[in-house]
Amino acid sequence: LVGSLAAELRSRLPDPGARRRVLERILGGRAADLVHAGDEAAGLAEMRRELDGASATPPGIVYLVGAGPGAGDLLTLRAHRLLGEADVIVHDRLVSDAVLDMARRDAERIYVGKHRADYALPQAEINALLVRLAREGKRVVRLKSGDPLVFGRAAEEASALAQAGITFEIVPGVTAALACAAQAGIPLTHATLASNLTFVTAHLRDGVLDADFDALAAVGGTLAVYMGLATLPALTSGLIAAGMPATRPAALIERGGTDAQRVLFADLGALAERGAGWAESGPVLALIGEAIGARPRVDPAARMPA
Amino acid sequence: LVGSLAAELRSRLPDPGARRRVLERILGGRAADLVHAGDEAAGLAEMRRELDGASATPPGIVYLVGAGPGAGDLLTLRAHRLLGEADVIVHDRLVSDAVLDMARRDAERIYVGKHRADYALPQAEINALLVRLAREGKRVVRLKSGDPLVFGRAAEEASALAQAGITFEIVPGVTAALACAAQAGIPLTHATLASNLTFVTAHLRDGVLDADFDALAAVGGTLAVYMGLATLPALTSGLIAAGMPATRPAALIERGGTDAQRVLFADLGALAERGAGWAESGPVLALIGEAIGARPRVDPAARMPA
Repeated sequence: LVGSLAAELRSRLPDPGARRRVLERILGGRAADLVHAGDEAAGLAEMRRELDGASATPPGIVYLVGAGPGAGDLLTLRAHRLLGEADVIVHDRLVSDAVLDMARRDAERIYVGKHRADYALPQAEINALLVRLAREGKRVVRLKSGDPLVFGRAAEEASALAQAGITFEIVPGVTAALACAAQAGIPLTHATLASNLTFVTAHLRDGVLDADFDALAAVGGTLAVYMGLATLPALTSGLIAAGMPATRPAALIERGGTDAQRVLFADLGALAERGAGWAESGPVLALIGEAIGARPRVDPAARMPA
Repeated sequence: LVGSLAAELRSRLPDPGARRRVLERILGGRAADLVHAGDEAAGLAEMRRELDGASATPPGIVYLVGAGPGAGDLLTLRAHRLLGEADVIVHDRLVSDAVLDMARRDAERIYVGKHRADYALPQAEINALLVRLAREGKRVVRLKSGDPLVFGRAAEEASALAQAGITFEIVPGVTAALACAAQAGIPLTHATLASNLTFVTAHLRDGVLDADFDALAAVGGTLAVYMGLATLPALTSGLIAAGMPATRPAALIERGGTDAQRVLFADLGALAERGAGWAESGPVLALIGEAIGARPRVDPAARMPA
C-alpha cells in the first residue's frame, strides 16, 4: 500500500521534501487511523483524497532561528524540532557543527558565511535565496548564531520575506552574552550595582570605531560588547576618554558558550593590554561594569560536578 | 541481582535521589559492561566496589537554570535534560506550568514565588534553602523565568553557594525581550537604526520611578523595559522629559513568548494611554526605539503556516 502510494507521489511531486511531507501527513493522519481501526475502504478513500489535494506545490515557509552560542545543548527544543524537519538549512559561519549536526541528515545545507564585515553572500542575495527556496515549496531553516534579532539582521530578512508574501516565523535563541556570563559565573545585572544591561557591537570602519562613547559611558549598567579582538584598544580608550573609570571591572571572553570558552578578568584600563596576547581569530565578547566585580569567588576544587 | 543490590542500597542510602543516582551509575557503568561481556565474577566485584564507595553522602549540586519566556519548547535542551534528572525543583511564580511539567515526575517542587517586590521567601532564605538541599546530597534545579542573570538574581544565589562550598552551574535561557520580539516580529537591533539594545527594569518605589532617564534617553538604541503595567505612565513621561521624542516608535507586550501573547504598537507619547485598558496583572515588556518602526509589515492572510 505504502509502496504504490510512494510511486504515485513520485510522479506527481518531483520535490523530495514536498513528497516526504505529504507522505508523513497521510501516514500520520486520519487515513492511517481509519486503516488501523479496521475500516480499510474508508482509509483508502481518505488517502486518495489527501493525494489528490497534494498535487499543487505546497507553500514553503522560512524559520529564522537562533542557533544559540555554540554548544549543541543550548539550542531550544523548538529550534531542535525545526532542524529535524527542515528541507534546507541556510547558515552563517558562526553556527557550530554541534548545531548543524542536529539537522535532518538529508537536508540541504547552504553556507552563506559571515565574518565581520565580509559576507560570502551579500544580504540582498541571502534575502533572494530565502524567497526562492520558499517559493519552491521548501521548509527552510535560516540559522543564525545566538539570537536572530540581536545583531543578526533577522529583521531585514523578515521584511524581504513579508514583501514577497512568504510565511515566516522567528525563533529566539540564547544570545552569546548570556551564555558567556552563565558559563563564567559573571553577574550581568545586580540589585545594587547594575539596573541595566546594554548589548552593543563595536567594529572598526576605516580604522575608526563608530560608537557613541558618551552614551555608553553614561548608561551606567553592564555593557556587553560583541566585537572583534582588534577593536578592543579603541573601545577601552574611547570609554575611558568619555569618562568611564579605568578601574571599572571587566572581562574578555573567547569562544563563549562552548567547551573551549576562555575568560580573562581585568580592569577596563588593563583589558586591551591583557587581551593583546590572544589569537586574533573569531569573535570575542567584552563585559564591562561594576557587577562584573561582584562575581562569586569560587574555590576551583569545589566546582567539579559529581 | 538488581533486587539484592537495591535492597542493600536502601539500607545504606536513605535518600531516594542519591540511591537512584548510584544505581544508575552501577547499571550504566563498567560493572554492567563486565556482566554483559560474560565475566559475571568481575562484574560483581566491580559492583561491590561501587557500592562500598557510595556509602558516603554524595555531594549535591545546584543548577541555576533559565526557564525561558514561558512556552515549553523555548527551553534549552540542557535545561530540559537537567529538569529530567533533578531531585528538587525550586521555582518562582513566573515559571510556566509548561516548563514545570517537564521535570521528573517524582521530583520535589518547592515554590518560592516572586511577584514584583513581594517574595514568598526573602532572598536570604532562598539562598539558605539551596545550600541546605545541596548539603543533603540533592541534585537541585533552581528555575528562573527567562535568563537567570538578567534581573534574575542568580549572581546573588551563586555567591551564597560559592561561599558555602556548594558546586553550582548556571544555565542560560531565552530572556523575555528576545522571545517577545521574535514572536511579534519586532527588530531589536538594526543596521542603521539601532546599534545597541538596553535591558532595564522599571519599578515604582514609594510611587516614584527609580531610573536614570537622561542616560536611557541618550543611549540611542532600543530599550527593552521589564516592568509592571502600573509603571508605564511614569516611564514614558520620564523618558520624554529627558529629551526622547514622543514620536519614537514603541510596543507593549503582555504574556510574551506564550500562545497568549498580546502586542500593541504606539508612539512613545501614546503608549501609556493605549496600554491603560489592559488588565493590570502580570509583567509587561515595553520596547522603545526607531528599530520598532522598521518591523516587517505582514499581510496576516499570508502568515498562516502550512
